[in-house]
Amino acid sequence: MPVKIYLAGPEVFLSNAREMLDVKAALAREAGFTPISPGDLLIPPADTKIEHGCNINAVDEQMMIEADAVIANLTPFRGIAADTGTSYELGFMCALGKPVFAYTNVAANHFTRIMRYYGDVSTQDETGRYRGADGLSIENFDMADNLMLHGGIVRRGGVVVVSDAPADALYTDLTAFKECLAIAARKLL
Amino acid sequence: MPVKIYLAGPEVFLSNAREMLDVKAALAREAGFTPISPGDLLIPPADTKIEHGCNINAVDEQMMIEADAVIANLTPFRGIAADTGTSYELGFMCALGKPVFAYTNVAANHFTRIMRYYGDVSTQDETGRYRGADGLSIENFDMADNLMLHGGIVRRGGVVVVSDAPADALYTDLTAFKECLAIAARKLL
Repeated sequence: MPVKIYLAGPEVFLSNAREMLDVKAALAREAGFTPISPGDLLIPPADTKIEHGCNINAVDEQMMIEADAVIANLTPFRGIAADTGTSYELGFMCALGKPVFAYTNVAANHFTRIMRYYGDVSTQDETGRYRGADGLSIENFDMADNLMLHGGIVRRGGVVVVSDAPADALYTDLTAFKECLAIAARKLL
Repeated sequence: MPVKIYLAGPEVFLSNAREMLDVKAALAREAGFTPISPGDLLIPPADTKIEHGCNINAVDEQMMIEADAVIANLTPFRGIAADTGTSYELGFMCALGKPVFAYTNVAANHFTRIMRYYGDVSTQDETGRYRGADGLSIENFDMADNLMLHGGIVRRGGVVVVSDAPADALYTDLTAFKECLAIAARKLL
């Protein structure tokens, strides 16, 4: 039985999206998986933008339902945290009880990135919790992103592979993806 | 039978988190629901930060499994998009097939916020897709956030209530939350 793996991540937004999705799919095939990528299917036409977005959601959710596992690219996207669509998909697969694996191309962890967001200025409240100038607490769990994401993966026996890609290859460097694939292959194949 | 509603959102990070969670829970009770909020239970102690984070994830996921529905606060958090933890939780509840409702306190939609991120400078590629200076495509679906989130809600018959809170009440204004509660109550109670 082929093991189908859903490749979640913000690659769909790249100017070379098709190429990147194809390269990741080829690597997944080489590792022994049957890859499923968002954007692989034709999207049914729609009368409104919202309906069009809903049609894409429907196709992607169906792909996740058919997949046996997921590798999610949690590289921070347009800001300090993972892409929200990828975060949704990771939660979706965790709820379905499917094996989950993830990677990020940014070595600085969630805490470090939030600290930078606050210009590395923070205070500690009476419970020892770090807070930014706006009073918001700064999660400090040695994790790559919000604890729901990283914790959801670790608790299911998955891994979060952390790499340190050059700034100009943040969404194209595949070092961490390959390592993630190898780990997933050892667990699932 | 009480209908249990999980209150997802970045309120847990506020300096007055307890107060805000309590106010939201009280409003949910007034609307006829049994509220469940992250942070309501004692978290088992742990030896490492990662284990502690995992314990919080476990408690929150258990709450979602016990809940009958969710109201997610998708107000942009430390950037232009929703909190990644809340995005994960929304995907989790969608996969479980539970009714989902959401709101945001920022009226500018996902497209408008991404455009602002690029200083309102964009180009259109040969397919008509808008792209930022970094080449990344700018989702243009009249949605409040990434299409997986907004589409996942709409496709399930839920709503995304959009409000326009003052900047200093972005995480405390409850106008949209109350409207969302009223809609959820009409559908579920």
